[in-house]
Amino acid sequence: MEEVNKFAESTATIVDGEAVYEEKDPESNSLHQSLLKRNLTLSSSPLAIVGAKVSHIESLDFEINENDLFKHDWRSRSKVQVLQYIFLKWTLAFLVGLLTGLIATLINVAVENIAGYKLLAVINYIEEERYLMGFAYFAGANFLLTLVAAILCVCFAPTAAGPGIPEIKAYLNGVDTPNMFGATTLIVKIIGSVGAVSAGLDLGKEGPLVHIGSCIASLLGQGGPDNYRLKWRWLRYFNNDRDRRDLITCGASSGVCAAFRAPVGGVLFALEEVATWWRSALLWRTFFGTAVVVVVLRAFMEICKSGNCGLFGKGGLIMFDVSNVSVRYHAVDIIPVALIGVLGGVLGSLYNHLLHKILRVYNLINEKGKFHKLLLALSVSIFTSVCLYGLPFLARCRPCDPSLPDSSCPTTGRAGNFKQFNCPKDYYNDLATLLLTTNDDAVRNIFSISTPREYEILSLIIFFALYCILGLVTFGIAVPSGLFLPIILMGSAYGRMLGTAMGPYTKIDQGLYAVLGAASLMAGSMRMTVSLCVIFLELTNNLLLLPITMLVLLIAKTVGDCFNPSIYEIILELKGLPFLDAHPEPWMRNITVGELADVKPAVVTLSGIEKVGRIVEILKNTTHNGFPVVDEGVVPPMGSRIGATELHGLVLRAHLVLVLKKKWFLQERRRTEEWEVREKFTSIDLAERGVKIEEVMVTEDEMEMYVDLHPLTNTTPYTVVESISVAKAMVLFRQVGLRHMLILPKYQAAGVFPVVGILTRQDLRAHNILSAFPHLEKSSGGKKGH
Amino acid sequence: MEEVNKFAESTATIVDGEAVYEEKDPESNSLHQSLLKRNLTLSSSPLAIVGAKVSHIESLDFEINENDLFKHDWRSRSKVQVLQYIFLKWTLAFLVGLLTGLIATLINVAVENIAGYKLLAVINYIEEERYLMGFAYFAGANFLLTLVAAILCVCFAPTAAGPGIPEIKAYLNGVDTPNMFGATTLIVKIIGSVGAVSAGLDLGKEGPLVHIGSCIASLLGQGGPDNYRLKWRWLRYFNNDRDRRDLITCGASSGVCAAFRAPVGGVLFALEEVATWWRSALLWRTFFGTAVVVVVLRAFMEICKSGNCGLFGKGGLIMFDVSNVSVRYHAVDIIPVALIGVLGGVLGSLYNHLLHKILRVYNLINEKGKFHKLLLALSVSIFTSVCLYGLPFLARCRPCDPSLPDSSCPTTGRAGNFKQFNCPKDYYNDLATLLLTTNDDAVRNIFSISTPREYEILSLIIFFALYCILGLVTFGIAVPSGLFLPIILMGSAYGRMLGTAMGPYTKIDQGLYAVLGAASLMAGSMRMTVSLCVIFLELTNNLLLLPITMLVLLIAKTVGDCFNPSIYEIILELKGLPFLDAHPEPWMRNITVGELADVKPAVVTLSGIEKVGRIVEILKNTTHNGFPVVDEGVVPPMGSRIGATELHGLVLRAHLVLVLKKKWFLQERRRTEEWEVREKFTSIDLAERGVKIEEVMVTEDEMEMYVDLHPLTNTTPYTVVESISVAKAMVLFRQVGLRHMLILPKYQAAGVFPVVGILTRQDLRAHNILSAFPHLEKSSGGKKGH
Repeated sequence: MEEVNKFAESTATIVDGEAVYEEKDPESNSLHQSLLKRNLTLSSSPLAIVGAKVSHIESLDFEINENDLFKHDWRSRSKVQVLQYIFLKWTLAFLVGLLTGLIATLINVAVENIAGYKLLAVINYIEEERYLMGFAYFAGANFLLTLVAAILCVCFAPTAAGPGIPEIKAYLNGVDTPNMFGATTLIVKIIGSVGAVSAGLDLGKEGPLVHIGSCIASLLGQGGPDNYRLKWRWLRYFNNDRDRRDLITCGASSGVCAAFRAPVGGVLFALEEVATWWRSALLWRTFFGTAVVVVVLRAFMEICKSGNCGLFGKGGLIMFDVSNVSVRYHAVDIIPVALIGVLGGVLGSLYNHLLHKILRVYNLINEKGKFHKLLLALSVSIFTSVCLYGLPFLARCRPCDPSLPDSSCPTTGRAGNFKQFNCPKDYYNDLATLLLTTNDDAVRNIFSISTPREYEILSLIIFFALYCILGLVTFGIAVPSGLFLPIILMGSAYGRMLGTAMGPYTKIDQGLYAVLGAASLMAGSMRMTVSLCVIFLELTNNLLLLPITMLVLLIAKTVGDCFNPSIYEIILELKGLPFLDAHPEPWMRNITVGELADVKPAVVTLSGIEKVGRIVEILKNTTHNGFPVVDEGVVPPMGSRIGATELHGLVLRAHLVLVLKKKWFLQERRRTEEWEVREKFTSIDLAERGVKIEEVMVTEDEMEMYVDLHPLTNTTPYTVVESISVAKAMVLFRQVGLRHMLILPKYQAAGVFPVVGILTRQDLRAHNILSAFPHLEKSSGGKKGH
Repeated sequence: MEEVNKFAESTATIVDGEAVYEEKDPESNSLHQSLLKRNLTLSSSPLAIVGAKVSHIESLDFEINENDLFKHDWRSRSKVQVLQYIFLKWTLAFLVGLLTGLIATLINVAVENIAGYKLLAVINYIEEERYLMGFAYFAGANFLLTLVAAILCVCFAPTAAGPGIPEIKAYLNGVDTPNMFGATTLIVKIIGSVGAVSAGLDLGKEGPLVHIGSCIASLLGQGGPDNYRLKWRWLRYFNNDRDRRDLITCGASSGVCAAFRAPVGGVLFALEEVATWWRSALLWRTFFGTAVVVVVLRAFMEICKSGNCGLFGKGGLIMFDVSNVSVRYHAVDIIPVALIGVLGGVLGSLYNHLLHKILRVYNLINEKGKFHKLLLALSVSIFTSVCLYGLPFLARCRPCDPSLPDSSCPTTGRAGNFKQFNCPKDYYNDLATLLLTTNDDAVRNIFSISTPREYEILSLIIFFALYCILGLVTFGIAVPSGLFLPIILMGSAYGRMLGTAMGPYTKIDQGLYAVLGAASLMAGSMRMTVSLCVIFLELTNNLLLLPITMLVLLIAKTVGDCFNPSIYEIILELKGLPFLDAHPEPWMRNITVGELADVKPAVVTLSGIEKVGRIVEILKNTTHNGFPVVDEGVVPPMGSRIGATELHGLVLRAHLVLVLKKKWFLQERRRTEEWEVREKFTSIDLAERGVKIEEVMVTEDEMEMYVDLHPLTNTTPYTVVESISVAKAMVLFRQVGLRHMLILPKYQAAGVFPVVGILTRQDLRAHNILSAFPHLEKSSGGKKGH
């Protein structure tokens, strides 16, 4: 039974923690495929794109590893310790909310001030009719701000680029993207986000805030950044993937809450879009976190009201309060509303499709190196500046509506709904109102209610076309960028266009059309329903909007789903993150896990008392993370003892490395007592990760010694019988949050090995199974999604 | 290996579908317990209280039963059929929403009219100062209405009594309460609810609406009432426990939405409180259902506005719109708000405790027979009438606030905030405002804002005390009764009391204090957070209330959880419904499923090709619902063939009975071909339930024949190894929604039987395990919850 298989699962060699990908032919005897079943191997390379680079990724293990040490620790945990744990859990949720709220305020204050003073200066130049100087100042400031954000991202934390939501989604599904939740990433994300948003780029701070919330949660849970961890005893309870998962869920919902000031929406966003596992207790804790965020935000807005925060307070923290509008609509208004829904679905899926293509191209550029990344970001910045500054000159000046109060039209300051720009007194430039302002103010202006004649349809078309282009070209550049705001801007543009076109035929305000348009495009692209609905409810503060918002969201999502998956799923797929879907594909019922095990390399098992040499050899030659432990020559309580074996459990790589590092070796083959292992190891030791086998030195003599693996083995792994269908195995794998699943034989006989195989996340991915069993796809009738 | 065990799991004999409970000593040789391990048996009687009677209950099976027939059906399902299924799923969600909305409107219109005309007549008598006549009319009408509701409940549908929410919760957890979702129950629930609410009893229509929604969903899914089912081909896809579960979830959320006009709250209620399994697709479908409900309700309110619905529209459909109030609060207001939270937690858990005691007493009364049930209901009705009519005479008349418009104080009609009652002109009776009105109006009156001096503190105390008593004595009587409204009334009373007491020290309106009080008692008793928060948000239509509502809810729930579980859990426990909690108890890590299997009777297995006689014998002598199928004398691909066995899967009782009924017997021991079984059975046959072994006749000759069980066996059951801890097994059992879980041996040897045991829901319940292993409780450190 001594089988050692040579490292067949991955063809990546790990250099400095990152893997270099070697493209390799899949054993290339395709002629004999029907004869030699073994030729079809499940390709399961744990590689994904992390910050434009291909890196090795690890799965997470949410299963409780019940070995002797854990059980002892569990039993000896006193009531006080349980209370400590509960207290700390809530304290951490509180801190996550508090810090997320503070940082969100900070970002808002910074953005409003930087962008505000920049725009004030530009407006001054324009008033003096020094248009070129104005442009130079505008483009220059944007260039510098983008440069700061991009350099930080490129040089210090490539994972801080983009929104981060797909990676958080993957983490909560059980995929650990390296360097995703570190202190550097957090700092770069904060500063980069301020820079990128102030630079007037077509991106939001909403996605980054979700990432920031998660980073804070992760850092708090592990007691600080990797190198300067707080070694507080209480924190040891949180040194496992399960509690970290819960914390990060909490952080993500706090982030959404901070972004939209929507506490219920934040919780629901985490529930609907981000989290894979959910339970009532978590619902309650995330809710607590978002409540704290709201209180912090409110407190700061109260403080800033009196002008203590510079320009902040004149427009900061998006909030499109339309609670004063009496929403009236009749049966006939359903038609334009449904039309918006359909448009949102079509445009949303089209946007997803195009963005996918552009991200592929950008990936090729970004792979070329840091300089190319920078160049890309800066070109987009210059293009944005040119458009934002230049296009308003195309619009003609429109006279102010005399019924408006004098001070509101035209405005010359930073915020305001009727920008004077290059126009004479009592005239305003509607395109400048939308373009030469911060993104938050642009949203507020296009949502503005009771201003039916404010925008010319041509201006809205230009605005829409511009933001379609910017929305596509901006997202993939190497700065922290959220998707929410670009989509809201695009959606509100066509919504308002439709409202203007409907004009006298509808009773719904044009501002509400814009809101519905934004909602429809969000649903069409991101495919959320309930959480979006609640977020829009909390943003607009008007419950009477609820029924039509629901209608628009449902239609947009349904239409969008006909074409392609949601934007986050597309990004996950593009990055190669092995996300496990909630539902197995229909064809997975036609294949058993036994058939999967057949095309995998034979499983590597260890004996209960194993030679040190063999352990070292296996650890060096494979990348497996878990090894079944099998005892031979046992005496079963019934049945014959000839050829009898016993499945003892599963031992983790990290624990094997730990044994080697601590040199817990035995001179002879014998079972140890419980006190022996407890003398050497604590459950805190077992929670340590990241020690590599390459760092451990074992002498020749020691190679001949033995290790008793029994006390370190998880004796209660989840198992399936080889006859179970892949569909059902996948449900189990995902529902319970596994990293490894053992396959047991359906036969019971002497000499049958008690483990048939071991399944990991990669083995259960539809794509990998189909590449090994191409006939399944045909039988499935073609429906494959993406 | 021929073991037939005599019916050891349940001591109930089934008579006419209901079981008669026989109390029996647990084999009474307690002296030898330490020697004879088998004496400790897991007591797993599937009995529970269903409508005051002890009945036999069944578990549900949410697992997909993958046998050959299913797989064939699955493979042969064309794209058109898949589309049919999806289309029907959405159509059913639409119909559930539509019908729930219609019935909710109907109930509201009926209640408002019946109660309205009753109150108008009473008020006329009072105006004429014919007080005794007024009382006779009031009490008489209430008596008759209660009588109608109670007679219907007692005679036709005992399951229609109470709120129904605990049973729905149990159903979605996997426990089928008989007669819970039938047509009779639905009709009785509707009429009974109208009667009971119109009778002025202290109960709401909210809980019953949730049950009504679920009934509608269940009936639609199965194509009508049991005896008159629509045999539409399309509906066959819904003839399984999984799809019925989804439909009932949808119905429950539509019901909550109809009760509170809160679409998002409805979805969240289903998610947080009712459902055990949840997935994104369901979120979306329930959301669609609640959207339909809202549209229906709105349409009817639009119609009724013009006075087409009698008295409805003057107060119908509770909605406490406080959106016009500017909510202002400062840091110091946190103190009274926190106090409300603490009070809510303490009072809520006290209420749970007392209600539990009273329900136990009521159960004893109700068990005595129909007459006693009726008597109980009618006594409560008379007591209620006396209190509601008599107590206002204790209050002194108060002068109207002259700043109010003339028409609003005093009011003499049915609805209105300043009831004249027995007072002279320009005076009002504040207690009559609260008591002599419908419950909905009472809530609206106590929530009324900008009326700081409306209620005297003494009146509020009387109101609070009365509703505490009524809330406790009314709930258990045999009429459809919701818990929401009684709790809201009690909570708002002490909330307003506190507000009045705080008087000048606070900036929060007294009406808002009442709202917060209601929320706190709900959280303290029902222990919901997010869904309650959203329901209150949607009821009050004021987002600015959100942060303090969240605070109150969180405090109340935390405080309440220190004392006892939620009221629904208490009722579940009281009724004996085997609800599986989300979290295993800590001590469950210290026991393996193998140990559980040891104290259970040996498992009853069948051979792949089994004698008819043995099948009949087993079916008659056991109540098991699933039997492992084991093939002996097989040839494993590796290992020795001596004593080799193979686990083929699990066959269901229903399928065995079907085989006997259709007489699919073989003359000799042989494997059948796939076409043979497909000729005889369709997958529609397999979905049939409810055929009893007693109804099947098998001749002596046939007893000697054979059955090939292979094609009917679910070849992919979920399994665990005997060494897994009960905690982990329970997680698997609950997460995947199982009815049976096979235990496999950890040993692999000739002669070891491939199945160690079988676990059901009852075996995994903490209470049952503790009765077999009493030492576990001690080691767990006492923390046992309830």
